[in-house]
Amino acid sequence: MNVAIVGVTGYSGTVLYTLLANHPAVDDIKLYGHSDEGKNGDVRYLDELIAGFHGQHVKLQKFDANQIMAGNDAVFFATSAGVTSKLAIPFVEADFPVIDLSGDFRLPDPAVYEKWYHKPAAPVADLAKASYNLADVDQPQTNYVANPGCYATATLLGLAPMVQADLIDPDTIIVDAKSGTSGAGKKLTQISHFTEVNDNLQLYGLNTHKHIPEIVAQLQKWNDKVNAIQFSTTLLPLTTGLMASIYAKVKPGVTQEALMTVFETTYANHPFIHVLDGQTPTLKQVVGTNNCDIGVVFNPVTQTVMVISVIDNLIKGAAGQAIQNFNHLFNLDETAGLPTLPVFA
Amino acid sequence: MNVAIVGVTGYSGTVLYTLLANHPAVDDIKLYGHSDEGKNGDVRYLDELIAGFHGQHVKLQKFDANQIMAGNDAVFFATSAGVTSKLAIPFVEADFPVIDLSGDFRLPDPAVYEKWYHKPAAPVADLAKASYNLADVDQPQTNYVANPGCYATATLLGLAPMVQADLIDPDTIIVDAKSGTSGAGKKLTQISHFTEVNDNLQLYGLNTHKHIPEIVAQLQKWNDKVNAIQFSTTLLPLTTGLMASIYAKVKPGVTQEALMTVFETTYANHPFIHVLDGQTPTLKQVVGTNNCDIGVVFNPVTQTVMVISVIDNLIKGAAGQAIQNFNHLFNLDETAGLPTLPVFA
Amino acid sequence: MNVAIVGVTGYSGTVLYTLLANHPAVDDIKLYGHSDEGKNGDVRYLDELIAGFHGQHVKLQKFDANQIMAGNDAVFFATSAGVTSKLAIPFVEADFPVIDLSGDFRLPDPAVYEKWYHKPAAPVADLAKASYNLADVDQPQTNYVANPGCYATATLLGLAPMVQADLIDPDTIIVDAKSGTSGAGKKLTQISHFTEVNDNLQLYGLNTHKHIPEIVAQLQKWNDKVNAIQFSTTLLPLTTGLMASIYAKVKPGVTQEALMTVFETTYANHPFIHVLDGQTPTLKQVVGTNNCDIGVVFNPVTQTVMVISVIDNLIKGAAGQAIQNFNHLFNLDETAGLPTLPVFA
Amino acid sequence: MNVAIVGVTGYSGTVLYTLLANHPAVDDIKLYGHSDEGKNGDVRYLDELIAGFHGQHVKLQKFDANQIMAGNDAVFFATSAGVTSKLAIPFVEADFPVIDLSGDFRLPDPAVYEKWYHKPAAPVADLAKASYNLADVDQPQTNYVANPGCYATATLLGLAPMVQADLIDPDTIIVDAKSGTSGAGKKLTQISHFTEVNDNLQLYGLNTHKHIPEIVAQLQKWNDKVNAIQFSTTLLPLTTGLMASIYAKVKPGVTQEALMTVFETTYANHPFIHVLDGQTPTLKQVVGTNNCDIGVVFNPVTQTVMVISVIDNLIKGAAGQAIQNFNHLFNLDETAGLPTLPVFA
Repeated sequence: MNVAIVGVTGYSGTVLYTLLANHPAVDDIKLYGHSDEGKNGDVRYLDELIAGFHGQHVKLQKFDANQIMAGNDAVFFATSAGVTSKLAIPFVEADFPVIDLSGDFRLPDPAVYEKWYHKPAAPVADLAKASYNLADVDQPQTNYVANPGCYATATLLGLAPMVQADLIDPDTIIVDAKSGTSGAGKKLTQISHFTEVNDNLQLYGLNTHKHIPEIVAQLQKWNDKVNAIQFSTTLLPLTTGLMASIYAKVKPGVTQEALMTVFETTYANHPFIHVLDGQTPTLKQVVGTNNCDIGVVFNPVTQTVMVISVIDNLIKGAAGQAIQNFNHLFNLDETAGLPTLPVFA
Repeated sequence: MNVAIVGVTGYSGTVLYTLLANHPAVDDIKLYGHSDEGKNGDVRYLDELIAGFHGQHVKLQKFDANQIMAGNDAVFFATSAGVTSKLAIPFVEADFPVIDLSGDFRLPDPAVYEKWYHKPAAPVADLAKASYNLADVDQPQTNYVANPGCYATATLLGLAPMVQADLIDPDTIIVDAKSGTSGAGKKLTQISHFTEVNDNLQLYGLNTHKHIPEIVAQLQKWNDKVNAIQFSTTLLPLTTGLMASIYAKVKPGVTQEALMTVFETTYANHPFIHVLDGQTPTLKQVVGTNNCDIGVVFNPVTQTVMVISVIDNLIKGAAGQAIQNFNHLFNLDETAGLPTLPVFA
Repeated sequence: MNVAIVGVTGYSGTVLYTLLANHPAVDDIKLYGHSDEGKNGDVRYLDELIAGFHGQHVKLQKFDANQIMAGNDAVFFATSAGVTSKLAIPFVEADFPVIDLSGDFRLPDPAVYEKWYHKPAAPVADLAKASYNLADVDQPQTNYVANPGCYATATLLGLAPMVQADLIDPDTIIVDAKSGTSGAGKKLTQISHFTEVNDNLQLYGLNTHKHIPEIVAQLQKWNDKVNAIQFSTTLLPLTTGLMASIYAKVKPGVTQEALMTVFETTYANHPFIHVLDGQTPTLKQVVGTNNCDIGVVFNPVTQTVMVISVIDNLIKGAAGQAIQNFNHLFNLDETAGLPTLPVFA
Repeated sequence: MNVAIVGVTGYSGTVLYTLLANHPAVDDIKLYGHSDEGKNGDVRYLDELIAGFHGQHVKLQKFDANQIMAGNDAVFFATSAGVTSKLAIPFVEADFPVIDLSGDFRLPDPAVYEKWYHKPAAPVADLAKASYNLADVDQPQTNYVANPGCYATATLLGLAPMVQADLIDPDTIIVDAKSGTSGAGKKLTQISHFTEVNDNLQLYGLNTHKHIPEIVAQLQKWNDKVNAIQFSTTLLPLTTGLMASIYAKVKPGVTQEALMTVFETTYANHPFIHVLDGQTPTLKQVVGTNNCDIGVVFNPVTQTVMVISVIDNLIKGAAGQAIQNFNHLFNLDETAGLPTLPVFA
């Protein structure tokens, strides 16, 4: 198969390239620059743009929707929110396979998108042709796959079994999420300046984070009693990895055993999800993999369950899940091309 | 004044020495080794034990309770739980001024101590003579001051105004605390090995942390409707600093303004506590100080307040608060010898 | 092919397992515990020993040289210096293929070994059957391959072209090497305690580091005018990666162009080595790969060349080079099973 | 005394403020914004600009040379190179006491300045009125003190005794310097983006670093046989601290004892300099202090001495040394207001 990447120079795009370069069903990867790239008509090559990518002398071509569709079986958008919606419409309308890592097609309601993203939404008819798809839970329903956000992925995988089985009080969900800086991308900002991040913790987007509406929308599909979640994000002094620490009051009579039963049943045939009974995973045990490790610890004293859900934000939270959705879309083995052993030490 | 430190070579003890060396009311600091130190009768000096302590040629004397009381006005115990209770009894019984940084005298009920610490408690009569004292809220009631733990300090200062004023549902308190490694001390452990901590997050002591009972006991003194708290600790890849992220459902009708009113009233004349209205503090803005900065952010959608309480775990969470309690005990200015400007960059 | 690993639970052993699990010519990996493992006859499995190794339910068998030789085509020793020499003799004497990651067979002279390692050396007759083999430069001459040390690898690859071509004054070689902590292994030590490493630099083994004699011995094979090198190692606050900053006075008339010519000629057909002309590589551009990136910068003012050689200490400096040597030994493609794209972000 | 700071919001300026706020001879600190600050005529206060600076409600006044001279006894410039030279001329010409932390007056020859700084130099007549003054070695000769750069300070203090006593071959000096990111300031750059710095090493300014000419000029004052030095800087994944690893061939017959004799003699009455005989200091043992700790280790095999010189780049390398020069200028105790105990853990 031939695949295209738009936006390879961002962190997610680069990881996506590396994973696709090792994917057994992918023969060729073509690269296209979005409007911010390839200025002045100069030809650029991947090995000149990314240090250490020796031998990857792949040209970044000027973005051209028709040319991409003519020469490829699918395209991945690793572009920013606000950029994808401008570029992707021809693909939506041609029903061409797209895996979109941005947030632009995750929210079907333009008004909701504009409230949280502070940007114009894609047309509602196009939004309706996209399917938001958590790759470890569902199969894509359309050829345009809106790949979930990193925080949404860890949070939803941690909550799914309990919310689906109605084991927790839906008004008590609290998510204290922590992430490394790579999720914030290459753009230089005060919050990602080394001296601000190192030896420090900074909260950002409290009660306004863009991933909140996609989490709530998905939870509501599973259980219409969910109204809202309390959600915070704390920036960690590390590069890669995301932990969602999830708390909720259980319904009367729920026990550790009952919780484990629904977690194990839900994830029985899901190769990337591993559930720990009464134990908590570390962040590092999933970094470098497409796994999501989930610890479930019920506290009978407070009638509260704490669920710790950890992922690699650039793999399971972006590029890896995108490939998993690509595998779904083309009926490949779900695990094709995806790493499962952590990078140790 | 002459003061003594027992246990100067631990992280808290060393910071305590540094602060006392700059304290305007302290003339002389004598050092005493507890039973684990000064083996073989060899004489040791501080400048040989702590790298960079040039010129601090202070002898570590063999621990001797009578000698300490004869030559000093007060003693600080910076020894571990289980050690202090063995050494401190003569001081308790002589009603000699003690500031105890360990956990041994924080819990008046020996059964509770033994349940959480898995060690024999001090005699109940001696425990009764100790006063647990959060230095930014209370004055010590006895000459034996049990200095609060680091997690307890950040958590209690973040909760005090709301619990005292009964603004939150006492069954919904959740504390997601994060701390650097210095709180775990110098002892070599797997959890504090560099390759395990760096680029990682590890939870420890979930639902079993020793600071839980002292937090609950203090909350109950303020409001007898509190039964328990949900409390977790996550180890951060940094050395110094502690953040308690506190969540609770508010009582009906409570607003951001109502919350701010009680926070500002409670801490009006407390020089080390700073409250941020709708903002969240960073960890680094308190590192190097005896401050506690507290952000208060109410979310009307979830009717949940999030309070972010940050401290330097070795200063406000240990040595600095110990000096503040010492200042209280001797009717010195509460701020004497205590830093308030963060170490920047 | 069937291969065995002795010592899989160390950092190098675990990385070795992960790489071999993806090696196209390896069908089966058997694991054997050395004398320090598998106490009390309890059966242990890899997935229980290494967090995140879900599904790797591979038994750690008791070490038995005959059994290993009967069931495998080759064995990798990822055991410590002093341990390997005790276990490996039967393999040496049977001329069975061994890749030894330890230092025990790197120095042919037992007296030199004992001077630098402070341990008893292997018998001289067995040492003579081992070949020290820098995989990017040479082919193994015997079935027992002594895999170079991490510092030696980066240093020798940075020096080889200049020393072989006699372009530098051999009495002026200075190596200022810096490494992450994973090279020091899992053993808990003061120097690897998080609070000692973080925000810090510590030198260790100055003028006494075990890798000095193997470097000097190899340099002397290339150019008998080399007598000694000035070599220091500084421990960095990071986990993985090693940089050797190499300085030497050039011979009269040597220029940047002359240096580049010998570097490019020497490494022309060596797929893992990349030379940068007048530029310096970063550490991260090789982490996760078997590459060695080398920057060459001549300073005409001081007539000094600075060479920056960077590697992943666990891959090129240990497990990856071991596999490269294994590939050589079995006439496989040198690059089989070895990653070349860095783990980004 | 009343002192002024121009440029308080940079890292050095903020540390300078903190130290001056605790200086026993300083009664009042006035703050002045340089041309890049205080736009639109809005009044700004320090506590609003620096997080955690509660209670420091000090106004940043518009820069006005005459007003500064009228109301203060001295002014500190913590502004960038290129800015100071534009602002400082009136002070030079009035012979008003200035401590200048920038590089603008360190090089007396405008041509040399322009070659290394790529900016217009100050007038040569004004440059002649400035004295470059390494505070631990010399006394200022004029009222305009050019405070040395951070790399220059660590390097010169490590070399001074050997160069003054002519114990090393002046053509063999190599300095492999490493520094945290705070030296690079608050300006957002690719090289200081967290994901680029963390888990990484990056060299910068190789053979072109601005501190090279001031080092060489000072060395030549001590020993006219010095022509040049080989000098590199490597950026570390930490915030504060600087290590200069210095190598040189000794003259024939020089021993460890001879080296120690000159180091101890040179620094006998210099309270901030501590020399370690055959040992190497860690970076952390000086962070938070105005100290410079120097390890001296001679290697008889290579006839090379390695000197490790460590400083806090913002204190000894900037603000602390500036205060030490201020103390010299006003005949105060050299140590007034300067910390000597490291911030531990």
